[in-house]
Amino acid sequence: MNYSMIRYVLFRLVRVMGCLFLLPLVVAIIYKEYDSAIAFLALAGFSVLLGVIGSHKKPENRVIYAKEGFSITAAAWLLMSLLGAVPFVITGTIPSYVDALFETVSGLTTTGGSILTSLDGMEYSVQFWRTFTHWIGGMGVLVFLLAIVPMADGYSMHLMRAESPGPVVGKIVPKVKDTAKILYLIYFGITVTEIICLFLSGMPLYDAITISFSTVGTGGFAVNNAGIGGYSTLSQAIIIVFMALCGVNFTVYYFLLNRKPKEAFAIDEVKFYFGTMILSAVFITVNIYRAGILTSGAMCFHHSLFAVVSVMTTTGFGTLDFDKWPMFSKMILCILSLVGACAGSTGGGFKFSRAVIVIRNVRNELNFIVHPKAVKRVYMDGHTVEGTTVKSVSAYLGLYVVTFIASTLVVALDNFDFQTTVTSVAATLNNIGPGLGMVGPMGNYSQFSVLSKLVLMFDMLAGRLELLPIFIVIKPKTWRR
Amino acid sequence: MNYSMIRYVLFRLVRVMGCLFLLPLVVAIIYKEYDSAIAFLALAGFSVLLGVIGSHKKPENRVIYAKEGFSITAAAWLLMSLLGAVPFVITGTIPSYVDALFETVSGLTTTGGSILTSLDGMEYSVQFWRTFTHWIGGMGVLVFLLAIVPMADGYSMHLMRAESPGPVVGKIVPKVKDTAKILYLIYFGITVTEIICLFLSGMPLYDAITISFSTVGTGGFAVNNAGIGGYSTLSQAIIIVFMALCGVNFTVYYFLLNRKPKEAFAIDEVKFYFGTMILSAVFITVNIYRAGILTSGAMCFHHSLFAVVSVMTTTGFGTLDFDKWPMFSKMILCILSLVGACAGSTGGGFKFSRAVIVIRNVRNELNFIVHPKAVKRVYMDGHTVEGTTVKSVSAYLGLYVVTFIASTLVVALDNFDFQTTVTSVAATLNNIGPGLGMVGPMGNYSQFSVLSKLVLMFDMLAGRLELLPIFIVIKPKTWRR
Repeated sequence: MNYSMIRYVLFRLVRVMGCLFLLPLVVAIIYKEYDSAIAFLALAGFSVLLGVIGSHKKPENRVIYAKEGFSITAAAWLLMSLLGAVPFVITGTIPSYVDALFETVSGLTTTGGSILTSLDGMEYSVQFWRTFTHWIGGMGVLVFLLAIVPMADGYSMHLMRAESPGPVVGKIVPKVKDTAKILYLIYFGITVTEIICLFLSGMPLYDAITISFSTVGTGGFAVNNAGIGGYSTLSQAIIIVFMALCGVNFTVYYFLLNRKPKEAFAIDEVKFYFGTMILSAVFITVNIYRAGILTSGAMCFHHSLFAVVSVMTTTGFGTLDFDKWPMFSKMILCILSLVGACAGSTGGGFKFSRAVIVIRNVRNELNFIVHPKAVKRVYMDGHTVEGTTVKSVSAYLGLYVVTFIASTLVVALDNFDFQTTVTSVAATLNNIGPGLGMVGPMGNYSQFSVLSKLVLMFDMLAGRLELLPIFIVIKPKTWRR
Repeated sequence: MNYSMIRYVLFRLVRVMGCLFLLPLVVAIIYKEYDSAIAFLALAGFSVLLGVIGSHKKPENRVIYAKEGFSITAAAWLLMSLLGAVPFVITGTIPSYVDALFETVSGLTTTGGSILTSLDGMEYSVQFWRTFTHWIGGMGVLVFLLAIVPMADGYSMHLMRAESPGPVVGKIVPKVKDTAKILYLIYFGITVTEIICLFLSGMPLYDAITISFSTVGTGGFAVNNAGIGGYSTLSQAIIIVFMALCGVNFTVYYFLLNRKPKEAFAIDEVKFYFGTMILSAVFITVNIYRAGILTSGAMCFHHSLFAVVSVMTTTGFGTLDFDKWPMFSKMILCILSLVGACAGSTGGGFKFSRAVIVIRNVRNELNFIVHPKAVKRVYMDGHTVEGTTVKSVSAYLGLYVVTFIASTLVVALDNFDFQTTVTSVAATLNNIGPGLGMVGPMGNYSQFSVLSKLVLMFDMLAGRLELLPIFIVIKPKTWRR
């Protein structure tokens, strides 16, 4: 283990976090929240100082392997969460540190589930920090670090892969550093565009910025109790568009920027993603229209599409309380939430590419039984998927199911109803935010026990890092020999 | 396709069914239910006649391949269900044919979920037929046919594999015909032993016979409204033992009969099966004791063990209404029901051997990421599991999840609560019987729409035949070229 490199990266991270605290500091000054301003200033100073001291000496050996990559990633996310929770406690917004940690993990992992029972009256700077965690977590801090930290290039791939190991990510350009920069540029571009669009649609600038953070990171924190339902239909429509865009594999944008539309539209996953989106929205529209939820068919479609996109991208914004919709609509949303968004996007869930591989593997297997001489191959984007990838995806599905089941069991100790128990795990493991029942769009996670909160935090982190890093790090065998 | 062989086997099946109708006929005569006696006699005569005429000419080409094997299996189970439902309708017990079909499918697939709201007052002969379907379905009618129908031996394996494709089944002795005979002998022996034990424990003979059918087939139909709760604790304990025994891979008994205890106890799956059983029962005992469900710790353990064994073996008998237990206990039962029993047993579910392979594959994959040069092998019973088996099991998990999700979606159209919707699918796909909520141990399936009933019937059949035959037959590509 290259411990000095791990130490170096983690202290660089603390330094970056320190700088990030300066943004809410500016907001605090603008809104004259001087107590909070002092808190953010102190925290920023402390973090930067600690970071500079700790990362002063650059390690000579900058080579890291898979094990280090996963360890750094897991440790980095834990550290960010622990540090990011501090502002909530010292400003007095969330007195309990466990609750503050839950809120921060939920923010950074872009889950968007909250333990807060009311958002109105919260300080602007704290609210800003809360939504900003979504933006930080959306693209991943390590991806950002990769763009600035010197590292043996052939090896930094291990870090990138650990933080967002979608089947495609990181293959955009040969150099990891450049890939990280390109990804952040696209991310930044989308954010600024959304802020402008929302502002032009009549939203106050503060809301436009914070809601954009929540949208682009596919997080789901709102900034007041009315949620997204309080904005105009036009603003909501803009949010739909940007949520949908951020659930797409970012490679598509890279191809489009490089004027390679053919490559961009050849990605199978994206076709399935948009196809499923439209189809589900139509089904729900018919279902809620018939159930008399709304009298206008057009508004039924608007809210259905909003809910579908919000859940598919695992954002978790709500315009209407879909917990009150008929079970068929709720079940569609539930299932969509399990599948999630595209790999290589800011969204969570099992990911469309994996689902496509699983289904094609099943089809293959059924063919194989009937025609044992047929070649067993899974195709994707016109290429053969390697056998090891199919095996990895299968193992991922296994790990996903096991994690889901084990978490449900612990949360069940709180003795809430079946729907709340199951969907709270689904909503955190897939980084969606709202579930059904007590954790529905108008509910929150405040009533869970500390044990359940810890398990749900674990699920959020495991889900955001796509299971592997967390499990590799907690597995004793990784550390043997 | 060897259509003449398919025709031959199916008509032989009708002949067997005709003979099976003679048993309830005897019961009807004993209990002086003459109207029903005439009904069963007519049905038996008609079936035997039809069967004899149809299977009069033996096909010259007795070779069948996988495709024929799966087609015969799927068609045979459909045919048995359609024919087996007739007694319920003509005796007037269940006037609706769809409901009668549901009850029969539930019986043959050893699910044990019922559309009946009351069992008291039902005729003895019809009640007998109802539980007898469990016994017929438990070991599989085709296994029985294999023992008597002349077939090209090297190929009859395709049939056996299609009806109960556990990883181990059918490898007991080289000749399939002999394997089938041995399996039926063991099955018969266990049934007779249970009848004697239950009778000696003070149960009326009629109850001892019918409840034994339900137990040994791991079905779960009771014969009166009190269910198993109405019998003595001793009788209940005997039922626990026999349920547990029938959830074990039957290969174990073959080894034991041949005085090979070493081989019998070397089967990993069986160790996990009993380990999980004891551990779960202990957890539930503590949970329900603390919740004050019962004041006696011993009785808590008795009923916990009963529920655990009942659910793990997918029998579905109930002594207490576990729907009223704390969520932690309910969740354990829910999860156990998904895993189910051992492969090669009469129980349903995903099967322990598959679960073990999935978990070992996950562990393997995690190791592989950290140590890319390590050999990727999954071990089971001291041997390496072939890569194709791991792939098949993974595909099975995929198919299982997809079937589960799709079924839930259709059942959700009935707009019942989340718990009822999800557990009704789980309870039928895993051939358990009772779920939670409306379909809990004291509930039933009568209120579902015809569409939902059809989907749940499909799930029961798909679950009993372990998914593949049904999906291979309904897949258009199977029939091309």
